[in-house]
Amino acid sequence: MVSNVTVQPPLTAIPADLRTLADYEKRAEMHMTPDVWRHVQEGAGRGITLAENRAAFDRIGFLPRAMADLDGDTGIELLGRHHAAPILLAPLAYQRLVHAEGELACARAATALDTGMIVSTLSSIPLEDIAAAAHALARDLGKKPAPLWFQLYLQPDREHSLQLVRRAEDAGYEAIVLTVDAALKPAGITLPPGVDAVNLAGMPRPRQTSVPGGKILLGTPLAQSAPGWEDLAWLRGVTRLPILVKGLLLGDDAARAVDEGADALIISNHGGRVLDGLPSPVELIQNVAESTAGRIPLLLDGGVRMGTDVVKAIALGASAVLIGRPQMHALAVAGLPGMAHMIHLMRTELEAAMAQLGCPTCALLGPDRLVALSR
Amino acid sequence: MVSNVTVQPPLTAIPADLRTLADYEKRAEMHMTPDVWRHVQEGAGRGITLAENRAAFDRIGFLPRAMADLDGDTGIELLGRHHAAPILLAPLAYQRLVHAEGELACARAATALDTGMIVSTLSSIPLEDIAAAAHALARDLGKKPAPLWFQLYLQPDREHSLQLVRRAEDAGYEAIVLTVDAALKPAGITLPPGVDAVNLAGMPRPRQTSVPGGKILLGTPLAQSAPGWEDLAWLRGVTRLPILVKGLLLGDDAARAVDEGADALIISNHGGRVLDGLPSPVELIQNVAESTAGRIPLLLDGGVRMGTDVVKAIALGASAVLIGRPQMHALAVAGLPGMAHMIHLMRTELEAAMAQLGCPTCALLGPDRLVALSR
Amino acid sequence: MVSNVTVQPPLTAIPADLRTLADYEKRAEMHMTPDVWRHVQEGAGRGITLAENRAAFDRIGFLPRAMADLDGDTGIELLGRHHAAPILLAPLAYQRLVHAEGELACARAATALDTGMIVSTLSSIPLEDIAAAAHALARDLGKKPAPLWFQLYLQPDREHSLQLVRRAEDAGYEAIVLTVDAALKPAGITLPPGVDAVNLAGMPRPRQTSVPGGKILLGTPLAQSAPGWEDLAWLRGVTRLPILVKGLLLGDDAARAVDEGADALIISNHGGRVLDGLPSPVELIQNVAESTAGRIPLLLDGGVRMGTDVVKAIALGASAVLIGRPQMHALAVAGLPGMAHMIHLMRTELEAAMAQLGCPTCALLGPDRLVALSR
Amino acid sequence: MVSNVTVQPPLTAIPADLRTLADYEKRAEMHMTPDVWRHVQEGAGRGITLAENRAAFDRIGFLPRAMADLDGDTGIELLGRHHAAPILLAPLAYQRLVHAEGELACARAATALDTGMIVSTLSSIPLEDIAAAAHALARDLGKKPAPLWFQLYLQPDREHSLQLVRRAEDAGYEAIVLTVDAALKPAGITLPPGVDAVNLAGMPRPRQTSVPGGKILLGTPLAQSAPGWEDLAWLRGVTRLPILVKGLLLGDDAARAVDEGADALIISNHGGRVLDGLPSPVELIQNVAESTAGRIPLLLDGGVRMGTDVVKAIALGASAVLIGRPQMHALAVAGLPGMAHMIHLMRTELEAAMAQLGCPTCALLGPDRLVALSR
Repeated sequence: MVSNVTVQPPLTAIPADLRTLADYEKRAEMHMTPDVWRHVQEGAGRGITLAENRAAFDRIGFLPRAMADLDGDTGIELLGRHHAAPILLAPLAYQRLVHAEGELACARAATALDTGMIVSTLSSIPLEDIAAAAHALARDLGKKPAPLWFQLYLQPDREHSLQLVRRAEDAGYEAIVLTVDAALKPAGITLPPGVDAVNLAGMPRPRQTSVPGGKILLGTPLAQSAPGWEDLAWLRGVTRLPILVKGLLLGDDAARAVDEGADALIISNHGGRVLDGLPSPVELIQNVAESTAGRIPLLLDGGVRMGTDVVKAIALGASAVLIGRPQMHALAVAGLPGMAHMIHLMRTELEAAMAQLGCPTCALLGPDRLVALSR
Repeated sequence: MVSNVTVQPPLTAIPADLRTLADYEKRAEMHMTPDVWRHVQEGAGRGITLAENRAAFDRIGFLPRAMADLDGDTGIELLGRHHAAPILLAPLAYQRLVHAEGELACARAATALDTGMIVSTLSSIPLEDIAAAAHALARDLGKKPAPLWFQLYLQPDREHSLQLVRRAEDAGYEAIVLTVDAALKPAGITLPPGVDAVNLAGMPRPRQTSVPGGKILLGTPLAQSAPGWEDLAWLRGVTRLPILVKGLLLGDDAARAVDEGADALIISNHGGRVLDGLPSPVELIQNVAESTAGRIPLLLDGGVRMGTDVVKAIALGASAVLIGRPQMHALAVAGLPGMAHMIHLMRTELEAAMAQLGCPTCALLGPDRLVALSR
Repeated sequence: MVSNVTVQPPLTAIPADLRTLADYEKRAEMHMTPDVWRHVQEGAGRGITLAENRAAFDRIGFLPRAMADLDGDTGIELLGRHHAAPILLAPLAYQRLVHAEGELACARAATALDTGMIVSTLSSIPLEDIAAAAHALARDLGKKPAPLWFQLYLQPDREHSLQLVRRAEDAGYEAIVLTVDAALKPAGITLPPGVDAVNLAGMPRPRQTSVPGGKILLGTPLAQSAPGWEDLAWLRGVTRLPILVKGLLLGDDAARAVDEGADALIISNHGGRVLDGLPSPVELIQNVAESTAGRIPLLLDGGVRMGTDVVKAIALGASAVLIGRPQMHALAVAGLPGMAHMIHLMRTELEAAMAQLGCPTCALLGPDRLVALSR
Repeated sequence: MVSNVTVQPPLTAIPADLRTLADYEKRAEMHMTPDVWRHVQEGAGRGITLAENRAAFDRIGFLPRAMADLDGDTGIELLGRHHAAPILLAPLAYQRLVHAEGELACARAATALDTGMIVSTLSSIPLEDIAAAAHALARDLGKKPAPLWFQLYLQPDREHSLQLVRRAEDAGYEAIVLTVDAALKPAGITLPPGVDAVNLAGMPRPRQTSVPGGKILLGTPLAQSAPGWEDLAWLRGVTRLPILVKGLLLGDDAARAVDEGADALIISNHGGRVLDGLPSPVELIQNVAESTAGRIPLLLDGGVRMGTDVVKAIALGASAVLIGRPQMHALAVAGLPGMAHMIHLMRTELEAAMAQLGCPTCALLGPDRLVALSR
């Protein structure tokens, strides 16, 4: 982790004024270096997609139902497993940028709160160690581990991609999440000492190598190594784990991914970090749901910051949502307890919103409870 | 009341630069502690509903009528009583947070200006004392007391709810306002010494008691104690007072409340304090009016800050409006005279707006005088 | 005029950085007391109408015509007189609030630039002196005086209204402008020594005299003295001068005013100073034009700050526009030369815009040159 | 170039934090005098068109295509020449205002990056010297020079216009760009010593010469010297070079320009500098494309600041775009290397965006990849 005299160390207990994820976000800046803060928060280009990921949620209003029965719970079934709530931790690169325990703290908090976690190819702790930490805590608590999935960035050499899949299988990961929208994104930050893509040790990394006047990207080896449909087919052939495709936004691509063997999709624009101008997932998920017609579960990633956002995503057709940047905020502010508190806040808000809508189960949430706000 | 060296005491006379409710709001911050100020002003979540309660009024424009006859007045009949203007004081919790005289000052100002007042279950002065103060002043002034209504939060034990109803009946309250939208809202502020829910002394309070990993809200005793339709039926059976249901927003729920015996409805989203994303009452009241088809009066609560807002609400189908946060502002700034002045300002603005529209009575105000502003 | 150590005296020459009316507005604040500045700039309520008067212009875009012939001029005929451009000075109260020469400076600048001026009942220089100053300068310059009109606020006593009309006729005013939308507006500022409604010396003024609990406005003598259709009929009967009605916004009222004998209308919401929520004149003028079907000229008042605004108003059906607050800005900054410069800037911008649109005469400007901007 | 103690000299190397054209813009202010900065950045009137040129791009969203083949390049054919990317340098006046090397630095950077450049009539280096610098560098680099075009402002005397055309032909310019929308625009800045319209040495300049009370613009000699259709016909008759008409926005004018012999059009509102209220080129280009039906290429000028903007313009029917103000920013910050870096950044972003959209050639970009963002 970066050390810097002006960066405050993480808290070890949660102060009373941290009552929402927005409180964590506001406080997080003082627990990161300016470079890391910018890296965590920034979006591509002018930040239009980044802002839109929030604004699209804010434009959706609720139609409440008064005095309804409130007997129910937030549980869902997904890819054969029970989840206590329709909320998972999104795959994030380099979580040790903001806290020394990095992904280990996240995995333990997720375990304690029965919350699924997706570990990134670019995790700053080896994928095996993360799984081991989660499993050990589950044993200590006498409970079944929460689902762990592995997010895969395809490597220039297919053999290296296969190694990652096998390691994930061996470590007990229960699904592979293939990201298809970020192969051409520049790194965006110089990693400080002690933070690295440890899972890729010894593997060559794809790089943009343009020179002025020469080819830049199109037609270069970097472009050729970007994921294609044949890569999904290959992956389908080499693993029995369920495969989720992450980074689609439109119905056509989604339908094809189902045809090619995906078991679930994560509708995402990569948190607004890749192509500025992409619409938000919550704007598009109904279109995707129509195109895939219930054949597979859809997860939504991007802009989720409150329990009401979860309700909106579910009501529009998502089976569950991913939480991204708020992990970095909570982890920076207070490590493991921060992560656990953040997840608990989100779930508490989710239940309160479901109660106000008179919908005590996820299955009862539908577009009839939503209305466009006239803003 | 909270004491703090930096908090200015209430004024005892009204300075000339307090000419609108906005002036009171601006000044009020210096007469409260930061905690109380935040508590008074804040909305749920990102404050979208809180802002929308204002924005929805601001989007409505007027179509004036020139050179009309201006002979008339603002009086209305409501639940068998005459009101000098279609304006009542909304039920607010803990008014002693901002002024030592709290609800007593409000009741006296309301009496002096012939304005109805709704006293909260969570008043910081016993409901009997508030009624007594109003009645005593009316006697002194030789006038009939303005209508006093009692707002009821159902208690976990029905017997306690019944006690509150009987006490209100005995103290001369003329109607019961059953709030149905806030049973699951957290308190939001730690009460300072001397401010408490005195009406509930000796009664157990509903509480959220979740532990990480366990049930949070849905399916818990707290959720079970939230108001249901059977509670309205029960209340209808135990009192002869008119019953208003507060906290509905949609036509379906409103129609059912009428069927279940409500005598009037207060269309409200609880001032944006409960579920962020709810539309504003003024946006929805026409829908409610259509569903209830004139069977009972509709009152509107939320965002009313100017005389023009009253005109808009009436023109869209409300019989009257409630004033909420401006009470806290005026009370903090100048206690009883502040409250009286605030009510007078609102009524003066109301008359001026009616005059500009060429509508000298409330009955003449209709949607034909309104237009959506192109903003 | 108010004196105050922090208020800068008016300039006597125009610095090079005053190139637009916006430059004058920005600079004007330092040439007025804070009270006067607020009084000049403020709108009623939350300022929605004030802002809308600008925003409505800004939402209108242009469709240019390239490489057109530019032979023409901005002249128009109005009520039997030629105007060099479709721009007149709006009636403003108390112009000595911002400059010792007040209305005299305006009248002389208007004369020098062949611009019509409407003198207010509430002018701070006697109406006779203003006319005399304009006529004297026209004689000196060897030109015909620009049109002078007199704006009439009806007085509680009809005899006093008649006196004002007769004085205006005697002083050479060429039309009477009857304002019908502001009888109930409070004064808004305490006049400093030396500034007063000199035309009304000796006449009783209408006042709001409400007491808490009593009647406020509707049904009071003040409301009864507001202008009615019978007052327009009376005025029509006592003068042969053309009568303009100022303060209408809608087609119905406009059509009736024509039926009742008005010779022209000034579409106005009183600069957003009277009823907050009124739409802007530029938003409504097409509706008025349809209702009056070319029977009389329409003038537009409100929000005009640039030459492009004049083009938009004319293209939508106005015969001419009035300039209001910019007079106070220019007068405060630089007195007579400021006023003359401001008028010249406006006309230069007007010609440049007409040229870009390929429309070298006002008659060529029509709605086919406009488009709603997608903002 | 202006010298001033507070103006920082241009950088000679590119710091790592200059990663986008926005970074250059932010930094540029410290490398210009306040007067020059204002002159570079400002728009006409209230800056509505200036802002709209950006906002119109920002309202356009993308529909991505996942996992597509990325073999291709950004090359286009235009007026018989190959361009490495659909990006040209717009004609700008007086580039020595921001850097001593002015247009020479631009021409060399353009040559190094195979980018077309349009030289302004108002260049601050003689047009012959600019062409010579470009050609010399191309020889040194052993490559064919990038296309150089000459932008023509018609002079009051046609003979002087002809001289300019002949000089451009002689110097090897490959096309004439006739600007038709700015003849009546005031200069806007006082040129410092050493910066001048050197191409016009010895020629009289058109001037606005209004006096208060007299004619201002319409019907004056200045208006008569504005470009007309007969001027285009004349130009067509005196040169064999391709002629582009710059400054049209609408289909009707565009179709006529094609009929009159234009070989290509540059859709432009002059960067928002001429008539405030004009819509943006990107808003109108589809209309122009329909009117001209593919008869000639359309170029788009105005608001282009990112690679995604280029994609949007191409997808809507442009063959290429011009870059305007970013030249001044890059030139001020770092002269020739700044210009080259800026062009390279733009092209890198362009390729990345094309890749995300799954469109590896310009021909594949169409409106099916775009969507209006719901903002």
